[in-house]
Amino acid sequence: MKPVIVTPQTMRFDQPLTLQSGAVLPSYELVYETYGELDADRSNAVLICHALNASHHVAGLKADANGQAIPRSEGWWDNMIGPGKSLDTNKFFVIGVNNLGSCFGSTGPTHANPASGQPWGADFPVVTVEDWVDAQARLIERLGIRQLAAVMGGSLGGMQTLSWTLQYPDRVRHAVVIASAPNLNAENIAFNEVARRAIITDPDFHDGHYLRAGTIPRRGLRIARMIGHITYLSDDVMNEKFGRELKPLASALAAGDPDAAERLAYQYSTQAIEFQIESYLRYQGDKFSEYFDANTYLLITRALDYFDPARLYGGGSLSAALARARARFLLISFTTDWRFSPARSREIVKALIDNRREVSYAEIDAPHGHDAFLLDDPRYLAAVRAYFEHTIAADARGAAA
Amino acid sequence: MKPVIVTPQTMRFDQPLTLQSGAVLPSYELVYETYGELDADRSNAVLICHALNASHHVAGLKADANGQAIPRSEGWWDNMIGPGKSLDTNKFFVIGVNNLGSCFGSTGPTHANPASGQPWGADFPVVTVEDWVDAQARLIERLGIRQLAAVMGGSLGGMQTLSWTLQYPDRVRHAVVIASAPNLNAENIAFNEVARRAIITDPDFHDGHYLRAGTIPRRGLRIARMIGHITYLSDDVMNEKFGRELKPLASALAAGDPDAAERLAYQYSTQAIEFQIESYLRYQGDKFSEYFDANTYLLITRALDYFDPARLYGGGSLSAALARARARFLLISFTTDWRFSPARSREIVKALIDNRREVSYAEIDAPHGHDAFLLDDPRYLAAVRAYFEHTIAADARGAAA
Repeated sequence: MKPVIVTPQTMRFDQPLTLQSGAVLPSYELVYETYGELDADRSNAVLICHALNASHHVAGLKADANGQAIPRSEGWWDNMIGPGKSLDTNKFFVIGVNNLGSCFGSTGPTHANPASGQPWGADFPVVTVEDWVDAQARLIERLGIRQLAAVMGGSLGGMQTLSWTLQYPDRVRHAVVIASAPNLNAENIAFNEVARRAIITDPDFHDGHYLRAGTIPRRGLRIARMIGHITYLSDDVMNEKFGRELKPLASALAAGDPDAAERLAYQYSTQAIEFQIESYLRYQGDKFSEYFDANTYLLITRALDYFDPARLYGGGSLSAALARARARFLLISFTTDWRFSPARSREIVKALIDNRREVSYAEIDAPHGHDAFLLDDPRYLAAVRAYFEHTIAADARGAAA
Repeated sequence: MKPVIVTPQTMRFDQPLTLQSGAVLPSYELVYETYGELDADRSNAVLICHALNASHHVAGLKADANGQAIPRSEGWWDNMIGPGKSLDTNKFFVIGVNNLGSCFGSTGPTHANPASGQPWGADFPVVTVEDWVDAQARLIERLGIRQLAAVMGGSLGGMQTLSWTLQYPDRVRHAVVIASAPNLNAENIAFNEVARRAIITDPDFHDGHYLRAGTIPRRGLRIARMIGHITYLSDDVMNEKFGRELKPLASALAAGDPDAAERLAYQYSTQAIEFQIESYLRYQGDKFSEYFDANTYLLITRALDYFDPARLYGGGSLSAALARARARFLLISFTTDWRFSPARSREIVKALIDNRREVSYAEIDAPHGHDAFLLDDPRYLAAVRAYFEHTIAADARGAAA
């Protein structure tokens, strides 16, 4: 199959955006990509909302300067979205958009604050899930789409999807909410807070103005990412993948040293890499600290903490809050996801049923923890495919008829 | 009841101790406390092994300079151990000992390295669970105790208890292993590694020689403790205790401001304390960083990582390793403990049963996570009481007869 090559586009908004906090962003840009063709009646558009460290680059391969595909540059949901895939871009017009506050193109803390000409840094206003949805809604409007066939996202992307159905109930027909939750629980907030403290107390953080200081709080970013990674994986998959395997031993065996097991024991060191899991986490932390912005990490984890539609719309009741929703829902959760457990998805399902909304729910018995929403579980991909092929496509045809 | 007032004692060992790593500690001191009276035939002694941040001060109140009780200075297992308590010091002679490498009195990284006169710091040798048990065994021998009625410990203390039965099978009649595991799994090691990286990458760590540099890596210690605390608590108990409660709102309500709920909303800040759980974790981190030594934290987490009797004695098989044990066992686990889950205790039970050893096992349905082993669950305290009153005491009488 011919590879899909995509080029990001930028849309500028000069109308000020009032944020949930009351702060006003005087102007901003959103970077986005699209896949497939918008049909004549503009009824086949699907918006994809991204999670913590992802971007608008959802599917396909990136183009180099000559328009040629860059190898291994697949979008983060390329296994799910493309021609003939579960979300089939031969039928749907898919939009990936980078959120405000990100470090991947849309206006964020690494950009210049127009008031000072210096990078925003810590002065970039706190943005919420609701703010992101408001900004996305303007983009959708500018693209001439009155109503989305669907909004879809996993994890924090699922929260945005849910919020779309509450902020713009008439502008979304279907909501596909995967591995998500109606809010963070205390343990989720706790992990976010430790990650934030690691970043903020890094001496290179400089109160968030590290770019002006010519530094980057890499130590804090590494710790934050290591913590994150632990919570993305299930206990089981970590044990299966790494267990208690020793790194030097594994390296020696890989290098064809058959006696290594006899010879190599513990190094008896607190600093050397002893176990494979340590090597994996350090690698993930190092890699992340090279490309992710620390202020963006703070903003995104805070947006997660703050999201709480029951509080915002329902006086604490999720059922009361979800009475606003008009969309039909597909929810999917994964049994070993302890970050956003199936119980949290079931809370949303219950609140929708309380309101007699149409909702499909699949709980996939997968070993991969929270990460499962990005992986190739065939039952998962089939469930999304079925929903788009039958429920959403039929509905789109109905809307067009 | 008259309070039990205790004074720590110090025992010096001038015979070199060869550690598992091959390193030799030329001499060392162990700090310990005792409660109750050793009986004439020295058959009623119970050794308590401590976990990560505890010490020899297991029960009773500390004495001030005048021998008066210091208020609120109870030992960490005072609810379990004392006159008339589950482990009754009217019947048993209980010994609490501080481990090598600790920062609470026994020889450790904050002490002077005799070779240099400077604090050991990062040069203190890596010690293992087996090394601790060897050092404890010498103390027990010096106290004139040929055989312990029991060794008992929770978490890492349970690992030492298990190791006693393998290193000195004829010197321990009963092993009480609570909320423990036969080794750390990949997720446990992962959390330890993040905590260690937070400490080691703190610029105030100075390669572990921070005392010489006149600094303390408090940032790293804070992060390490925050991570630890999350893993000690269950998801449920965190939600019940803190949930999504806002700190400023709770403070205002506590100060008698009835309209606070109407007025106070989110602060929209990534750095301010917004939720109660954040306040709790920061407080725990700050407190810990004031009294705990960073090198000790590294050593103790590494001792946890390394412990693996199946590897050491059984060629990878726990059943083969536990064939060495002669003691009778009581194991206790807690349903919501996700750090050392009941499944890990059951592995030990199974390996003992494979060897036809006598073993009692209680799985307590408690909401408090790993922390439960330090708390006042009546079923838990009753299970320990019954074991000491019936099984161990009867056995001690038998040994005496």
